[in-house]
Amino acid sequence: MRHSTPSRTPARLRPSSLASVALAAGMALTMTARADEGMWLFNAAPVREIASRYGVSLDDAWLEHVRKSSVRISTGGSGSIVSADGLVMTNHHVASDLLAKLSTKDRDLLETGFYAKTRDQELKCPDLELDVLWTIEDVTSRVNQGVNDDTPAAEAGAIRRRNIATIEDACKKDTGLEPQVVTLYQGGQYHLYGYKRYTDVRMVFAPEQQAAFFGGDTDNFEYPRYCLDVSFLRIYEDGKPLKPEHYLKWTEGGLKEGDPIFISGHPGTTRRLYTMDHLRMRRDMQLPSQLSRIWRSEVKYQNFMARNAENHRIAKDDYFGIANGRKALTGQLAGLLDPGVMKAKAEQERTLREAVDRKPEWRAKWGGAWADIAGAEEVFRKIYDQFVLFEAEQFVGGSSTFGIARTLVRLPEEDAKPNGERLREFTDAARPSLELELYSPAPIYPDLEVFKVASGLSLMAEMLGGDHPLVQKVLAGKSPEERAHELVSGTSLFDVEQRGKLAGGGADAIASSDDPMIQLARLIDDEARSVRKTYEDDVQAVERGAYAKVAAAKFAVLGDSVYPDATFTLRLSYGAVKGYDEGGQKIPAFTTIGGTFDRLHERLGQEGFTLPNSWLSAQNRLNKDTPFNFVCTGDIIGGNSGSPIVGAQGEVVGLVFDGNIQSLVYDTAYTDAQARTVAVDARGILEALDKVYGAKDLVREIKGK
Amino acid sequence: MRHSTPSRTPARLRPSSLASVALAAGMALTMTARADEGMWLFNAAPVREIASRYGVSLDDAWLEHVRKSSVRISTGGSGSIVSADGLVMTNHHVASDLLAKLSTKDRDLLETGFYAKTRDQELKCPDLELDVLWTIEDVTSRVNQGVNDDTPAAEAGAIRRRNIATIEDACKKDTGLEPQVVTLYQGGQYHLYGYKRYTDVRMVFAPEQQAAFFGGDTDNFEYPRYCLDVSFLRIYEDGKPLKPEHYLKWTEGGLKEGDPIFISGHPGTTRRLYTMDHLRMRRDMQLPSQLSRIWRSEVKYQNFMARNAENHRIAKDDYFGIANGRKALTGQLAGLLDPGVMKAKAEQERTLREAVDRKPEWRAKWGGAWADIAGAEEVFRKIYDQFVLFEAEQFVGGSSTFGIARTLVRLPEEDAKPNGERLREFTDAARPSLELELYSPAPIYPDLEVFKVASGLSLMAEMLGGDHPLVQKVLAGKSPEERAHELVSGTSLFDVEQRGKLAGGGADAIASSDDPMIQLARLIDDEARSVRKTYEDDVQAVERGAYAKVAAAKFAVLGDSVYPDATFTLRLSYGAVKGYDEGGQKIPAFTTIGGTFDRLHERLGQEGFTLPNSWLSAQNRLNKDTPFNFVCTGDIIGGNSGSPIVGAQGEVVGLVFDGNIQSLVYDTAYTDAQARTVAVDARGILEALDKVYGAKDLVREIKGK
Repeated sequence: MRHSTPSRTPARLRPSSLASVALAAGMALTMTARADEGMWLFNAAPVREIASRYGVSLDDAWLEHVRKSSVRISTGGSGSIVSADGLVMTNHHVASDLLAKLSTKDRDLLETGFYAKTRDQELKCPDLELDVLWTIEDVTSRVNQGVNDDTPAAEAGAIRRRNIATIEDACKKDTGLEPQVVTLYQGGQYHLYGYKRYTDVRMVFAPEQQAAFFGGDTDNFEYPRYCLDVSFLRIYEDGKPLKPEHYLKWTEGGLKEGDPIFISGHPGTTRRLYTMDHLRMRRDMQLPSQLSRIWRSEVKYQNFMARNAENHRIAKDDYFGIANGRKALTGQLAGLLDPGVMKAKAEQERTLREAVDRKPEWRAKWGGAWADIAGAEEVFRKIYDQFVLFEAEQFVGGSSTFGIARTLVRLPEEDAKPNGERLREFTDAARPSLELELYSPAPIYPDLEVFKVASGLSLMAEMLGGDHPLVQKVLAGKSPEERAHELVSGTSLFDVEQRGKLAGGGADAIASSDDPMIQLARLIDDEARSVRKTYEDDVQAVERGAYAKVAAAKFAVLGDSVYPDATFTLRLSYGAVKGYDEGGQKIPAFTTIGGTFDRLHERLGQEGFTLPNSWLSAQNRLNKDTPFNFVCTGDIIGGNSGSPIVGAQGEVVGLVFDGNIQSLVYDTAYTDAQARTVAVDARGILEALDKVYGAKDLVREIKGK
Repeated sequence: MRHSTPSRTPARLRPSSLASVALAAGMALTMTARADEGMWLFNAAPVREIASRYGVSLDDAWLEHVRKSSVRISTGGSGSIVSADGLVMTNHHVASDLLAKLSTKDRDLLETGFYAKTRDQELKCPDLELDVLWTIEDVTSRVNQGVNDDTPAAEAGAIRRRNIATIEDACKKDTGLEPQVVTLYQGGQYHLYGYKRYTDVRMVFAPEQQAAFFGGDTDNFEYPRYCLDVSFLRIYEDGKPLKPEHYLKWTEGGLKEGDPIFISGHPGTTRRLYTMDHLRMRRDMQLPSQLSRIWRSEVKYQNFMARNAENHRIAKDDYFGIANGRKALTGQLAGLLDPGVMKAKAEQERTLREAVDRKPEWRAKWGGAWADIAGAEEVFRKIYDQFVLFEAEQFVGGSSTFGIARTLVRLPEEDAKPNGERLREFTDAARPSLELELYSPAPIYPDLEVFKVASGLSLMAEMLGGDHPLVQKVLAGKSPEERAHELVSGTSLFDVEQRGKLAGGGADAIASSDDPMIQLARLIDDEARSVRKTYEDDVQAVERGAYAKVAAAKFAVLGDSVYPDATFTLRLSYGAVKGYDEGGQKIPAFTTIGGTFDRLHERLGQEGFTLPNSWLSAQNRLNKDTPFNFVCTGDIIGGNSGSPIVGAQGEVVGLVFDGNIQSLVYDTAYTDAQARTVAVDARGILEALDKVYGAKDLVREIKGK
């Protein structure tokens, strides 16, 4: 049910014909620091490099303060604590999932926006977790305890899973923090993170989606931009606003071109460490398959939403995520189809492998890693469709009731196992998150469920063929549409209480349930578990072991200034405010609030280019010269949405919400020729809060007055 | 370049949860007449069945008159001659391709509509052919001359192609008519059609697309409807309006529920004769693959069109065709995923095969046909991707300049062969059509070309993988986007004169050309021809032979009242005006002009639901009770768009423009439970021409006054 990889976070798109040039000019394809590259661990920040490039000295206190002021948001984004009363700033598009859940047929918060003028008007968000990274410990040797060079990969995977469960258990007992053992360098290191977790989080402010996402899909991943992509939440503890130990102060002044900036956030996934064979699998199978499912969903959602206004309301947040993902993945695919990128990657791999091969000792220890990864990807190719359909998120179109049914079906079976042998999401450490989601009161709409299930059932037949035994079993002699109606109209899982009853009844309650969703989840559970086991044993475990070797080789060859791929955990990036040239044209670093109205008139009547009345009527009150959005170097990826941008003193100067199209290649490689992070300027946020929304109290709180 | 199968013609979509019920209740799954089923040959019309069902006697004169008043439109639709001055009526969506070609940046005829108040204002349509079916002759034995039971399939295919070329040549010489040997019953019979062909055709009238396609994609393939999906062309001969031997008179009165109707048009393709193995290949591979390319195109076109207003103008007609095709194919797939449909089909096949197997003589002659087809489809599965990419229309995204380049590259090579050995589109009989298209002055837009080529090149990599030798060869070390820019900016084929020069220069001019599109077409021609040859020899020829046996078995078992699958040639369908029940609700047969305004207010502000000013300002002048659209039984499919609906006296009573969603299964099987043909009422057309458009002269001409 939960996607640890954020699905709705910035990345960006569209192949530029200049991509190869950009690469040749500025792309750093190693994992070592160069230019403003790197999503660095807070416990291994490149302080010397930063000092030498920008003359800013980051000490441990600075790093701790920024880290403990940063939050991870379980909907798949980042944020920061920005007041002494637990106020949290993030993007509108990170909070949009919450806004959708808080909306009803008569109260569409995405449409109208929201502002709680008083604390008691703040709306509690269902099934949301905000995590603050409180402690970090390297547990690599403890995770690998009992694994040696001769341990078969599947067994090594099982041992590591057991060790991780033990480590997390101990952490939880000893510290009370929420533990997470994080796999770094695709298996090269394991760190234990202890989080302070907050689940009482309330909605304070959000603009209208029109203002947050001005320019719509057309301008998404583009620059210049004019988006107030911000929202504010508040953390509560024991029913009262949190008094945080750390929070970020707001800038007194503001940025100018060339100023150094720091980004503290949770980049989701990068693939810079991938071997060539791994990249090829991604280019030739995974991305085309994902994209084809996205295009399919996008069109089907459009059709569903066009049927009536209520369909539009209940599906638009999903739809936004799908369209956003399409832009991101299209850009990633274009990157891998760019011979410049692949050539540089191949060259980098060749150099590393040659260095390994030159030393017999290294060769013996690490030389087989690349072939192991190629072999694992071959296995993955073979099980890919079934893995996607029956275990990953695609099955029955991401239906909420099916997700609940699967959790309920697996719960008694997993609970009967020792903690270390359970599926990851059923371990004791993961249990609070699982229950938060399982018993979430967030609305589930029957019409949307029927649509998703019918679409998902047809997808299964399209991918596997109508006569496939699993398809026949799942459809049970009915058409996808008919079967979807039967499943959704028959299930009782819309009812939270009913979920609790089934969970409480244990294996017997599940076995005797006549709920058709429960029955469906049972029907395919053997096959789903089996394909997952093949994936975990023969793909993931093999690659963890092999990438540990690749990483060791990199450390040996390139030294210790290597940062790990992104894992939706806290990282520090750095860079400077900087415009760029595109097609011979200078793109300035900043836009202004006044530019918003120019853009509105330029694209009048085009989809996505409308402003809400609040903005239209505030037009004359606004200071048109206020900086609104800006671009900077600094290394980000989807998941960084909502990351604070701070200055040398740790003060909030901006808010990451996107990257430009040229930055989409960041998935695979960093470049600073044209690729940029796109942010809302701190000054633009205050100007809009004050003049458009009249949110005086909020402004006062942010300013700390 | 030319698609003999219409790509932009009505069909319709969306699985109904009642489909299985509908099938059980009313679906005729044989190819014999039952209910109002059948797309009948004019030389084998079911006159007795019609007389007994509707009391209408169709004699030879009636059939000849209606046939010679019907026209086939080369953009992929149907039409009819409706005045003594060669006026032709068809759908707006059949003429929209012409309207797009006649538009410029400053004159968007799809947006504004068009009315030539005088003859000299009529606009000549580029590269358009209207065909009137003048003579019909059964040439089955001549086509099969030299083929016997022992002839290998590939050789039989080659012999038939030679025979067909000879037959067509002789027809052209003897009669001056444009000949076409048509394959009927998938190979069971061959008929020689002689056409009167008209290429001087001018645009007379078209409403705004808003009025023609009111309700947009949402209401497409739905009912009730309110669309003025009509346009009028005029045939010229020797620079003067044609004085036709036959034309249809307009109705004096009008239809009412229950009245018999006749449809004379050109259904494109049906697959009712397909064996189960053939249907499975279509369900499991061909339709999912086609749909995935359609979804992809649809999203990519949306992104392209959103960039600016001119992009929107130049791409919208393509886009409409893509979205329309998506609805049609989605419905076809849903039909094949409906166990009711497949079960009935399997039952029908089982019955036929059992009858064949019972007679040793039949079994020996025909019993192997089903296995032959299964084998051919196995071959097709293997070559499908390459066939689609390199020979069928998908290559480089349907780029016009690539299509021209391929024709120019193949021309000298094909011309060097005897007529009977050439590729079908290069035979003497096909030459006029080929040249009309090759030298068409219709605009080709560079931006749209770059978009199509880049999209098509990426598709190739997505389908075959980035390291595939053909992909490497075609991309030539560049990214799809870069390569597209290079090809389009370098080609001279936008220039019609240049095309003539290259064609005139023969093989030498092609070999020495430095035009990058010509070079690309040469680069992949061996592979493209090779995959086409495999298709023609090992799929098509095998299936022609095998389906001839299946058809013979059907004739033997079911008698001679079997109609052939649709082939975009003239057919007669019949039925009656008839509403239907849906979800317990009665859907009346007729809508009214007044209903248009009700629907407008019901869906105000939703995409597709706008009316042009002409309609808004005519609202009070219009007779609101005038029938506007109606539904009837009668068997149609894509290609029937623009077909006249005539009454018992051969008078025009309506104009086919769509079918409802329940009729999408017509591809595979007929049903009259809910499936309906959707038409514009003749009275609605005149009311709108008169009151909305003030087209008094046109009305007078139509009325024959």
